[in-house]
Amino acid sequence: MSEFGPHQFSVVSKRTPFVDGPSKVSGRARYIADLDIQGAVWGKILRSPYPHADIVSIDTSAAEALPGVHGVITYRDAPQRSIEGGDEAGASDDPVYVLESRVRHVGDEVAAVAADTEEIAEAALDLIRIEWRQLPAVFDPEQALQPDAPQVRARGNLAGGEPILLERGDVAAGFAAAELVVEETYTTPFTSAIPLEPRGCIAAWEGDRLTVWKSGRNVYGDRQSLATVFGLPLNKIRVMTPVVGGSFGNKDESRLQFITALLAKKAGRPVKLCYSLSEELRAGRWRHPSKITVKMGVTRAGDITAIDATCIMNTGPYVPGTNVCRRSAHGLTYLYTCPNVKFTGYVVYTNTPVAGSYRALGAPQGHFALESQIDLVAEKLGIDPLAFRLRNHVPLAGQPGPAHKPSGRPIPPQPIAGGIPFSSNGLGECLAEGGAVVDWQPHPAGPTRRRDADGRLRGTGVAACIYQTGQAPSSAIVRVEADGTAEVLMGTLDVGQGSSTVLTIMAAETLGLPLHKVVGYFADAETTPFSHGTVGSTTTFSSGIAVQEAAGDAKRQLLNLGADALEAPIEALDIKDGVIFATEAPNRRISVVDALRRKLPRQIVGRAATSPGSDRYIINAFAAHFAEVSVDPDTGEVRVLRYVAAHDCGQPINVMAVEGQIEGGVMQGLGFALTEQLGVDPADGTPTSANLDTFKVPAQPDMPPMDVLLVDSHDAVGPFGAKAVGEVPVAPVAAAIANAVYDATGVRIRDLPVTAEKVLRGLQELRR
Amino acid sequence: MSEFGPHQFSVVSKRTPFVDGPSKVSGRARYIADLDIQGAVWGKILRSPYPHADIVSIDTSAAEALPGVHGVITYRDAPQRSIEGGDEAGASDDPVYVLESRVRHVGDEVAAVAADTEEIAEAALDLIRIEWRQLPAVFDPEQALQPDAPQVRARGNLAGGEPILLERGDVAAGFAAAELVVEETYTTPFTSAIPLEPRGCIAAWEGDRLTVWKSGRNVYGDRQSLATVFGLPLNKIRVMTPVVGGSFGNKDESRLQFITALLAKKAGRPVKLCYSLSEELRAGRWRHPSKITVKMGVTRAGDITAIDATCIMNTGPYVPGTNVCRRSAHGLTYLYTCPNVKFTGYVVYTNTPVAGSYRALGAPQGHFALESQIDLVAEKLGIDPLAFRLRNHVPLAGQPGPAHKPSGRPIPPQPIAGGIPFSSNGLGECLAEGGAVVDWQPHPAGPTRRRDADGRLRGTGVAACIYQTGQAPSSAIVRVEADGTAEVLMGTLDVGQGSSTVLTIMAAETLGLPLHKVVGYFADAETTPFSHGTVGSTTTFSSGIAVQEAAGDAKRQLLNLGADALEAPIEALDIKDGVIFATEAPNRRISVVDALRRKLPRQIVGRAATSPGSDRYIINAFAAHFAEVSVDPDTGEVRVLRYVAAHDCGQPINVMAVEGQIEGGVMQGLGFALTEQLGVDPADGTPTSANLDTFKVPAQPDMPPMDVLLVDSHDAVGPFGAKAVGEVPVAPVAAAIANAVYDATGVRIRDLPVTAEKVLRGLQELRR
Repeated sequence: MSEFGPHQFSVVSKRTPFVDGPSKVSGRARYIADLDIQGAVWGKILRSPYPHADIVSIDTSAAEALPGVHGVITYRDAPQRSIEGGDEAGASDDPVYVLESRVRHVGDEVAAVAADTEEIAEAALDLIRIEWRQLPAVFDPEQALQPDAPQVRARGNLAGGEPILLERGDVAAGFAAAELVVEETYTTPFTSAIPLEPRGCIAAWEGDRLTVWKSGRNVYGDRQSLATVFGLPLNKIRVMTPVVGGSFGNKDESRLQFITALLAKKAGRPVKLCYSLSEELRAGRWRHPSKITVKMGVTRAGDITAIDATCIMNTGPYVPGTNVCRRSAHGLTYLYTCPNVKFTGYVVYTNTPVAGSYRALGAPQGHFALESQIDLVAEKLGIDPLAFRLRNHVPLAGQPGPAHKPSGRPIPPQPIAGGIPFSSNGLGECLAEGGAVVDWQPHPAGPTRRRDADGRLRGTGVAACIYQTGQAPSSAIVRVEADGTAEVLMGTLDVGQGSSTVLTIMAAETLGLPLHKVVGYFADAETTPFSHGTVGSTTTFSSGIAVQEAAGDAKRQLLNLGADALEAPIEALDIKDGVIFATEAPNRRISVVDALRRKLPRQIVGRAATSPGSDRYIINAFAAHFAEVSVDPDTGEVRVLRYVAAHDCGQPINVMAVEGQIEGGVMQGLGFALTEQLGVDPADGTPTSANLDTFKVPAQPDMPPMDVLLVDSHDAVGPFGAKAVGEVPVAPVAAAIANAVYDATGVRIRDLPVTAEKVLRGLQELRR
Repeated sequence: MSEFGPHQFSVVSKRTPFVDGPSKVSGRARYIADLDIQGAVWGKILRSPYPHADIVSIDTSAAEALPGVHGVITYRDAPQRSIEGGDEAGASDDPVYVLESRVRHVGDEVAAVAADTEEIAEAALDLIRIEWRQLPAVFDPEQALQPDAPQVRARGNLAGGEPILLERGDVAAGFAAAELVVEETYTTPFTSAIPLEPRGCIAAWEGDRLTVWKSGRNVYGDRQSLATVFGLPLNKIRVMTPVVGGSFGNKDESRLQFITALLAKKAGRPVKLCYSLSEELRAGRWRHPSKITVKMGVTRAGDITAIDATCIMNTGPYVPGTNVCRRSAHGLTYLYTCPNVKFTGYVVYTNTPVAGSYRALGAPQGHFALESQIDLVAEKLGIDPLAFRLRNHVPLAGQPGPAHKPSGRPIPPQPIAGGIPFSSNGLGECLAEGGAVVDWQPHPAGPTRRRDADGRLRGTGVAACIYQTGQAPSSAIVRVEADGTAEVLMGTLDVGQGSSTVLTIMAAETLGLPLHKVVGYFADAETTPFSHGTVGSTTTFSSGIAVQEAAGDAKRQLLNLGADALEAPIEALDIKDGVIFATEAPNRRISVVDALRRKLPRQIVGRAATSPGSDRYIINAFAAHFAEVSVDPDTGEVRVLRYVAAHDCGQPINVMAVEGQIEGGVMQGLGFALTEQLGVDPADGTPTSANLDTFKVPAQPDMPPMDVLLVDSHDAVGPFGAKAVGEVPVAPVAAAIANAVYDATGVRIRDLPVTAEKVLRGLQELRR
């Protein structure tokens, strides 16, 4: 094949080291805490000692008088505009302000100080005198839903005011047709993402213009919310995100940027406010604890006739978003073929610390319940768990039946799409290929309780997962410079997952340039065009389509120059390695650099603004995870001996990054499964484990040997056939491990984490 | 007329305070010297004490050993790539490196030091030991052109290797047809722009990526030259210019950015290098001194039959550009109707300090010669100087005759366009209206020598001017945000002249938005699209066309949304005050904000890349200046009593800015006319007046009462009818004043500045 022959991927689907890797590993990369903004002073936040209380009086005079202090803010300084966004969130009659006279959890924000040093700021916090009036508090979401519960928020304790109701088919009829009905309840605790870099923000005003640097996930979203809260036009706010030390979807939804900006305004100079790790663990945003009841009806032959699931999630006093419930519902309603499905979800306000988005938002909770339940049902039917999944998993055609049916309920349930095919579906391959690699031994009769030579119990578990690929409006500018190098300008941001590499790869592939000739500039709401946030496994798919189209636009302009020069129609031309050539006569060619000499200015600006989505398809990523564990029968200690993660992420754009995402996701799933739990004192709502002694996060030695399988997949809709991977690998881990522990021991743990104590107690009960 | 009736200018042609005014007058604006870049140390340059010498040996060890020193660079560190651009400049066999072992003028760059403080850097410079071998030097450009002159540059002392030759018609025939031939020689000295902010630059490397902040005039130009010198791809270099404290076209063409970047690389940390005022005056870039001989043939009736001009300019040892000669030729060849014109120009290398671009590059020199000569010829013909100009000035149709004729010379002269009309021409109106305002009294018989009651001599002078509007490739991005505010992104930069205001005005006018809803972001070669430099009175015209087109592109997209919403063709729609409406039915309307709700992302990105220029037109700005002076007959002291500046700049975009440009230009012209002269010791080439004691710049009290007239003009080609004004007002000032002094005294000063000593000497000679 000629050097300029028909196209193969040149840059896509290789193993590409991250473009920002060298600056990170060399220590040159500057995170928020490393960033010295001219004239900036330090900000510190005073936090509430009470779970629910009103400020009767607050005296900041001593703090303000402390030498080196430049400003103190309290609720009296806060603009009277809700930080919680649109009216849906109750902005009008249930507002949350930058600071308030009421606190709603231990660690809630009370006041903030700007000072020359962190030490002075801390000292000033100690000088703020407050008289409190304590209010009754509630920490349990089910108690919070009782009519006489203390009222956490003005509109009541149920976020959104109504439960989330999703429905397909006729659940009652489905249960009537069932030969076996199994109902079980599963719970998961508070956990935290604790990225290596805690939250941080810097704000600087110049007149009425505000510049914010933030370790975040969404510069355009932050710009919008700052504009709303401070009553500023969008074009007067610049939000930039430098290098991020891990986001996991979790660096948002707090008061940080508002407090920093308000403090900078009060102090009359830039303010830098970085959380300590302890603050991050007490007052960051936690993963929503969940209580999910799954009722499933099946035929003896193994068909699922009905699923009815109820989910209660505690969000603490803030973050009204109910997407966490919808994400938990996704597996429950979509992963297995079932014509009759109902899901009821409650996101509940309490006076615990605050929950928020964290990698795979709701899906780890939902999949733990679903995939534990599937094993339970399979055993009761006498079907091997893997065989049951292979038999019932959702096919390419999607769920059967119409898109929705009318409902007589006062609050109309949201229809669950049915009859709409998936754009691609490699779930069967994930289950089959993963099972082959882990050497799955069918065990239709229940737990195998294999005993190793050393007396430990060994078992294998499987869990599948479905994750809808994030589809969001995005845009990109792709420039080609006079020397044939190119630049990608995008508002999206790399939270460490490698998106700048992936998007640069896509631009290079489209433009026919080697990767090193393309650089990216990201995450600046002033100079880069609109982007969605780095949430919901959106970037590769949605930003990918934008960069592909913008690079395509630039390429068309280059081909037009080439068409003039080569006197050929542009359809006959292509670009490779910086050379425009006729595909049928590769010797007819002109370099991109020479083609650009035919134009002034000698620069190409390609652009795209896209809102991807398809009426014809639902776009989902899939995975099947397999864990092999051994359990000490005397202590209940669980060791993960081996892990196999088989994924359908569509065409991988950067194989190395996909593997890294999966390995990291499994690691976070391992913590969720086995060790992580942020405690809250049931008496007074105080976080009891806000440090790394008691909040136990897996470290590298805890990682088992692991196989990552990427099944052959090329999506019909995604850019270069890609779908998503970011959040997916976290979702099935806890169920795969719990199922493996059950296979090893016969002990089923329904409340995460799967601690040694719980397993041992289960073993003791079995022996009784 | 309805609120949404037919269009008038809403934002254009008002008196608009500068958008960046508040930040400047409040002291918030940060110039290069105010900019603290994280980790930056100070750079200082060691300068040559000799006009022409070779380094025999250089020992930097003591400097390097000084505590606080982070790096020393000499010619040994310099990349072997010429800083003087393309091969035309002799990059291959006459290269100029970042630093060299040869120095070519007193003040030339020898070495540079990076240190923790400026004081340590200065001390380190003193520790550099150098053994020199002095070379013969030449300071006079005519001597430098002699065959035995010391060779300043490898390719010889004539820049470009050949004289510049411009020709129209048949000059010999023209002189043969003349009834009177007048030949005279005029000279102008070295002067300096000395902006309030001297040159400054900061450079920072991150791996192989270079970021440069520079008080300059052309971020894309600097990026290109840095890429060439350091062998970097364009997309690895980011050049940004913050607020500039005056450029006057003069903040370029030096080694500053190369030395700063090289030093930063050697020091391994960012380096900030700011010139002192004294450095600026010794080693900045000066205005080229000129010697121009004009030979003019006329008929008794007053027709000009031939012009033959010769111009010699000294550029010092660097800056090979010959445009300075072409700019000096422009008035000589275009301002007056004449079929037979020849211009010969020489740009000569010497060992004086270096000349470079400075506001109106060459035109002040050319117009001083031409407009003095016109007065001389008019007097010899017995025609009033204003009447002679009104009779002969170039008409709208341009110069007569064919575009060019063949020439037998070995170096073909460049044709001077003839037969191509001007896009607009308000020169006649400038002369007539300015004459009326100054109450011009015709004096066909020569100087009036009016005597005031106090015995001082009073006179009035006129000078006209033509200035070709800069046409250059440019581009712009104009974004409309979800809240209906807009952003302009352009690579061009505001040097203090108000271009950010002018370009923002044009975007607002096009988009139908009030000015306060549009903000601009400029001068960042990474995030803003290509721009020409802020030179040649280019910005309003060329960047203006780009921003007009980009805003027009954004507007079309908005109108398309409106067309969908209002079910009307876009031709029937317009936008005013953020509302899209049907021009024939203004009640059919939708706000831009609501229209944007119909689109995802809710952001419009308009773009344009333009290369303005017209084969059908030559685009020129015009002016006629009138000065009234009084002269002390006993001392020769000249006072300017009144000044009238009548300009055709096309449609003024910001009337206040145009007036400011004209007032500032006249002030600089006043210094050029009366006081400014940078001396060079003829023995050793040392600058003798490199401070403000001896280099006398006009201050506010020196400014006469002044009328600025903008004649009614709307150009056929320019954006909103605009042409240019930036450099124009400097060009005619010296001649207007010299002509006024002649009218007052009968003394004609042909060598600038018009000092009291020269006038007194002239008066004494007249009395003899």
